Amino acid sequence: MKLRLPFILFLAFLVLPNDQAQPYYTFINPFIGSAGEGNVFVGASCPFGMAKPGPDCDMSSNSGYSADTAVPLYGFSQVHVSGTGGGPKYGNIQIMPFGGTFQSIHQESLRCMEKAQAGYYGVNLCKWNIKAELTCSPSVAFYRFVFSEPGNEGIKIDLGTFLGEESIPDAREAQQFVGSEIEIVSGNEVRGYSRIRGGWNNGRAYTVHFTAVFSKEFSQCGTWNSEAIFPSVRIQTDKGKKTGAFFLFDDMKEDTILVKIGISFISALKARDNISREVPHWDFQKLLSETQNRWEELVNRLEVNPEASKKMKTMFYTALYHTMLMPTDRTGENPLWVTDEPYYDDFYAIWDTYRTSHPLLTLISPSRQADMIRALLDIYKYDGYMPDARSGNCNGRTQGGSNAEIMIADAFVKNMKGIDYGLALKAMLKDATVPPGGNEEKEGRGGLVDYNRLGYVSDNFVRAGNRTLEYAYDDFCLAQVAKGLGRNGEYHRFMQQAENWKNLWRPVEDHGSTGFIMPKNAAGQWIDSVQCDVLEGQRNMVRYTPLSQEWPNCVCWWCGFFYEGNSWEYSFFVPHDVPGLIQMSGGSEAFMKRLDTFFNNGYYNVGNEPSFLAPCLYHWIGRPDMSSKHIYEIVNMNSSNDRDGIPGNDDSGAMSSRLAFHMMGLFPNAGQPYYLITSPFFRQCTIHLENGKDFVILADRFSSKNTYIKSAKLNGIPFEQAWINHNTIVNGGKLVLEMDDKPSGWGSLIPLPGMQYE
Amino acid sequence: MKLRLPFILFLAFLVLPNDQAQPYYTFINPFIGSAGEGNVFVGASCPFGMAKPGPDCDMSSNSGYSADTAVPLYGFSQVHVSGTGGGPKYGNIQIMPFGGTFQSIHQESLRCMEKAQAGYYGVNLCKWNIKAELTCSPSVAFYRFVFSEPGNEGIKIDLGTFLGEESIPDAREAQQFVGSEIEIVSGNEVRGYSRIRGGWNNGRAYTVHFTAVFSKEFSQCGTWNSEAIFPSVRIQTDKGKKTGAFFLFDDMKEDTILVKIGISFISALKARDNISREVPHWDFQKLLSETQNRWEELVNRLEVNPEASKKMKTMFYTALYHTMLMPTDRTGENPLWVTDEPYYDDFYAIWDTYRTSHPLLTLISPSRQADMIRALLDIYKYDGYMPDARSGNCNGRTQGGSNAEIMIADAFVKNMKGIDYGLALKAMLKDATVPPGGNEEKEGRGGLVDYNRLGYVSDNFVRAGNRTLEYAYDDFCLAQVAKGLGRNGEYHRFMQQAENWKNLWRPVEDHGSTGFIMPKNAAGQWIDSVQCDVLEGQRNMVRYTPLSQEWPNCVCWWCGFFYEGNSWEYSFFVPHDVPGLIQMSGGSEAFMKRLDTFFNNGYYNVGNEPSFLAPCLYHWIGRPDMSSKHIYEIVNMNSSNDRDGIPGNDDSGAMSSRLAFHMMGLFPNAGQPYYLITSPFFRQCTIHLENGKDFVILADRFSSKNTYIKSAKLNGIPFEQAWINHNTIVNGGKLVLEMDDKPSGWGSLIPLPGMQYE
Repeated sequence: MKLRLPFILFLAFLVLPNDQAQPYYTFINPFIGSAGEGNVFVGASCPFGMAKPGPDCDMSSNSGYSADTAVPLYGFSQVHVSGTGGGPKYGNIQIMPFGGTFQSIHQESLRCMEKAQAGYYGVNLCKWNIKAELTCSPSVAFYRFVFSEPGNEGIKIDLGTFLGEESIPDAREAQQFVGSEIEIVSGNEVRGYSRIRGGWNNGRAYTVHFTAVFSKEFSQCGTWNSEAIFPSVRIQTDKGKKTGAFFLFDDMKEDTILVKIGISFISALKARDNISREVPHWDFQKLLSETQNRWEELVNRLEVNPEASKKMKTMFYTALYHTMLMPTDRTGENPLWVTDEPYYDDFYAIWDTYRTSHPLLTLISPSRQADMIRALLDIYKYDGYMPDARSGNCNGRTQGGSNAEIMIADAFVKNMKGIDYGLALKAMLKDATVPPGGNEEKEGRGGLVDYNRLGYVSDNFVRAGNRTLEYAYDDFCLAQVAKGLGRNGEYHRFMQQAENWKNLWRPVEDHGSTGFIMPKNAAGQWIDSVQCDVLEGQRNMVRYTPLSQEWPNCVCWWCGFFYEGNSWEYSFFVPHDVPGLIQMSGGSEAFMKRLDTFFNNGYYNVGNEPSFLAPCLYHWIGRPDMSSKHIYEIVNMNSSNDRDGIPGNDDSGAMSSRLAFHMMGLFPNAGQPYYLITSPFFRQCTIHLENGKDFVILADRFSSKNTYIKSAKLNGIPFEQAWINHNTIVNGGKLVLEMDDKPSGWGSLIPLPGMQYE
Repeated sequence: MKLRLPFILFLAFLVLPNDQAQPYYTFINPFIGSAGEGNVFVGASCPFGMAKPGPDCDMSSNSGYSADTAVPLYGFSQVHVSGTGGGPKYGNIQIMPFGGTFQSIHQESLRCMEKAQAGYYGVNLCKWNIKAELTCSPSVAFYRFVFSEPGNEGIKIDLGTFLGEESIPDAREAQQFVGSEIEIVSGNEVRGYSRIRGGWNNGRAYTVHFTAVFSKEFSQCGTWNSEAIFPSVRIQTDKGKKTGAFFLFDDMKEDTILVKIGISFISALKARDNISREVPHWDFQKLLSETQNRWEELVNRLEVNPEASKKMKTMFYTALYHTMLMPTDRTGENPLWVTDEPYYDDFYAIWDTYRTSHPLLTLISPSRQADMIRALLDIYKYDGYMPDARSGNCNGRTQGGSNAEIMIADAFVKNMKGIDYGLALKAMLKDATVPPGGNEEKEGRGGLVDYNRLGYVSDNFVRAGNRTLEYAYDDFCLAQVAKGLGRNGEYHRFMQQAENWKNLWRPVEDHGSTGFIMPKNAAGQWIDSVQCDVLEGQRNMVRYTPLSQEWPNCVCWWCGFFYEGNSWEYSFFVPHDVPGLIQMSGGSEAFMKRLDTFFNNGYYNVGNEPSFLAPCLYHWIGRPDMSSKHIYEIVNMNSSNDRDGIPGNDDSGAMSSRLAFHMMGLFPNAGQPYYLITSPFFRQCTIHLENGKDFVILADRFSSKNTYIKSAKLNGIPFEQAWINHNTIVNGGKLVLEMDDKPSGWGSLIPLPGMQYE
């Protein structure tokens, strides 16, 4: 008998009602990517929500979370980012319930049980047996604390904690405390702020204001300043010290306390106003339902066939969810200027998200994508440059190119409305012509003086390899917009510059392939070796080869020739002119061999963005079957619905959006108006477009063995090309792919778009 | 009989008690420079005070003030700058008393009487016969309003007003509204903030928070949002709109209302704390006395002979006062980072003040000057560059060089303690080696790429002439510090660069003198003509001569070859190597002729800083008598104790400190450790040094006719040189000058210091 219970449960699972009736948001599992390197945020958020309440278990974690349950929970802070690497950002205004008296400002507990859904996180705080649950509206966090011992209820709000503090106060990428203030304004209301600077983007100070209201009045309260506790004192003025407040409740009848924490980057009263506007009630479940609906409305734009496996649906809808956590919609919350334009922050980083996240959003919600681009242009207008990354209302940092240009070109070639492309061209030209100065990592194009004078970035600058490649790509994007606006002067100038990657193409041979992007000095001489200071006291020169990865051991993480990659990876990175790349590589056969070497030898890096397009490059040599083969292997080997199911930093959803496209069987090449077609992971996927039309991708004879496309029909007509235009999709219709268990010649004949410029 | 009254008054004036008993601050007349071009602030301030309450009569005025009494007074705002040009800054948190009901948010009155003293401003508001007086502590404004009709008393606080708003919202140098918020928190207390961006330095948003407390409770109150009035509504949350509040008092017994307005750049509670700490009482006169004492303690460091004329004393002590209004001591009020270092803002601009203001402060209060330099270094540490100008917590703009370096060198060669000169050298090297990027007008050295590559700034950059000259001077200053720290590599490198001005020295002849700083292109060719677009539709080329002043008519104000000057003026500007300049000019005789032409033809510009040193250049050719002659003429013709007594923008007291030095008979050459000796305007001036010692300058046989120095003795020993070392003064002693009515050969033999480098 003992053995039968699991079996019954298993059967019960199988006879669950048809998934079709189940909302798509229920397949979202926020824990995917919370272990391993994913760094995702597991707390509650609305799509692109400003408030992101969630647990802080590891104050040096990027998301605040730790999957290791041996690590205690310190509290729940209201602002987070998701999936990022480098130094953490945010983790402000931390709330924590506790039992008993308040003897120390530190109150922590192990977690006994955790649950997370879209818009929801719940945990049991073992130490006091307190059940803590949270949900949120766009700018308000809503907590439900159920205490096991009525009359022994405590809550603290700590303004001195935040993620990524370091013992060296001015440490690079560390968040640094600037100030905080707290004021208990009534028997159930408290307000204040926390002001922090630094973090990954080394940004200027930002201030998170809050107002918190409790569902019942406290019986005692007090504040603290540094570590000194002041019972009954209701104000701690900002004197550059860490402050907080605690509240004790002695209501013996009721074991639940609800807390609403409105946040704002403007003021505590604005935070209070956000509560009044967004959550004018005390119904936790109602708010949770509203937030779930916000997610449902977005994720159900992509509808897969109901009988798809739960695992596949979980992976897919969680990927959509992760893609839409950031950037953050802060319209009305910009403390730097007033504008009628939307305001988005936490582009973190566009270098990650331009490739697949924004193209995915362009399919799901182009109006939202247009708003983001409008925000970028407003930032250019008032801050001087578009960001390549931005957080805490401050641009910074650029990893490679000024890739907001790619977002603009992508919108332009996909005919996105509502954007002032004239202004956009100015913003792009600013990037391309005006050096940003200082450490050249805040915005714009570092090494631009070199690039514009020599046609490449010399070894006088760090990251010269990927900067040169990315600037050439950016220039192509700029040229597309210039051409569309009839600005032929700029068009011709920047199309010529788009070939600048060839200036670093050195005809060296490595592992059977010839021609790699290699470092060159300002005098035009190739560089054969680079300095490696890893051995103390020795100036150690090492040969620079296409497999060299001199960072972070020889030089700092940001100081190599390529950012987070080597020449084998980056020498495939010419998204705007793959035909030109094939030619430089020695033609199709040589390119095929190069790609095979790349994948077979394990040079491909699944966990980082520069390789995103690489598996699809087979398309350009007439072998879309090989693209599909690799994509199937990559997804199956590296992605899952487990906690460690994201094979690298999710990077604001960049990894997740890549997965979503692969599962749909489409892949974008940002800045160009088409998608490459590969074997989908679902029998059917319907794109419910914002214009009201539907586009269906149906995989006939879909099975776990039939992973190759044999033939295709678009709206009933044979479709021989392995790529499809954005406009074709937007006009609605149906793409039927006939699947087979072996490769076919489908898609090999009609050439793919390359750089149309002579 | 009628005729005798003035005569009696005249006699009464003559028999006033001896001025010796009169504190020196009483000679301060804040109205000097309030008419004409002086742009000085006439309200109340402590030395370097953050709170600067004062009348706003002209919302496009730099100081808020207008000397034209036909112009109404709109209110009193709490933050101002003094003497600046360009776009205005500040003018925040405006308070205005009024009589009667509150029908409109606009309440203005003509002024019937005005009075200003150090720390005091008073006016009668004719419209309602309300007497308004104000004084202040460092961060609190204190108002006394006496109403003529008790029971009909009103006060409004307007957070939507500020100086320099323009109808084009994004106009360059315009201040732009970002947000405001107001909350009436009790029957006599209100708080909030005003957030503004832009202004002269095109800075990021800054926030002025305030708490205001009234000496009695109001009977009615209300708020407004944009122009809509909300009676009894006590909160207007920041939604990017202009807000304010009004208060009506119906107390029939009392006609006086006192108001304390604490301000803070941190928070309203901090502003409230500032009131508690600085003004824990309601005694207007007590606070005024305290503020007067703060001034007295500083201005009495320079003590002139009591029988000097009131006019001379008024000019002198007012000049000292104007020198110490700015920069603003905001220690503890920095919203951007926490530090143990002092924090000063409103360097506006160092380009103006490094020449004489900071050297004057170095004599009066070297500890204060050291604090300012420490603040500059902290700004470098956290913001990346030292400012050349800074306001509203944001660097910007650089008119010419990165002249904080001159302040550092001046401190270093004068042996100033308490400064981390190692850090200072790093800050200077950052200026000298890392291009600031963007529009290159925020900080650092614009055109640095040219300068470091070519040895001059080419016509590819605006202001190439004065940038080249100033960078050479800055390089000399950097070299002095490097040498002192034993950094010989940097010393030699930058001493060589200090000669870079010679690269723009073109041997052209103009009005009998040969050799001028002239524009050159990047290819090394001299430029003979510049484009002038003054005629619509015509590309008009005009010959560029040493008298050309192509700005602002041909090109924008900031776009000429020289900033606010021409080549005749700037070709004298090599403060670090006057002997080299004389040599390039053809020797002493040619230089004498050049100087004579300069002054006799009216090429000298009394109203602008680049010419500050010019009258003293005669010293270097052995003719200190000519320096004294010109200085006497310049002071007598251009400076007075009248409202228009400052011959140009006072520029944070730059013009005033220049005057103060001239009147003392000393003139500094910033970055070098000596003063040039010229004929003083007082019989005696005693410098009470911070180290407790006195240095006395006594002019024997001083009279209005004896304006030449015949001989000198230092501590009783004949003193033949026309310059004196800083150390000599700091060690205390007595310099006796024997005055005469005709020039002498005194001071002609011992050569002046030049650039000591071969």
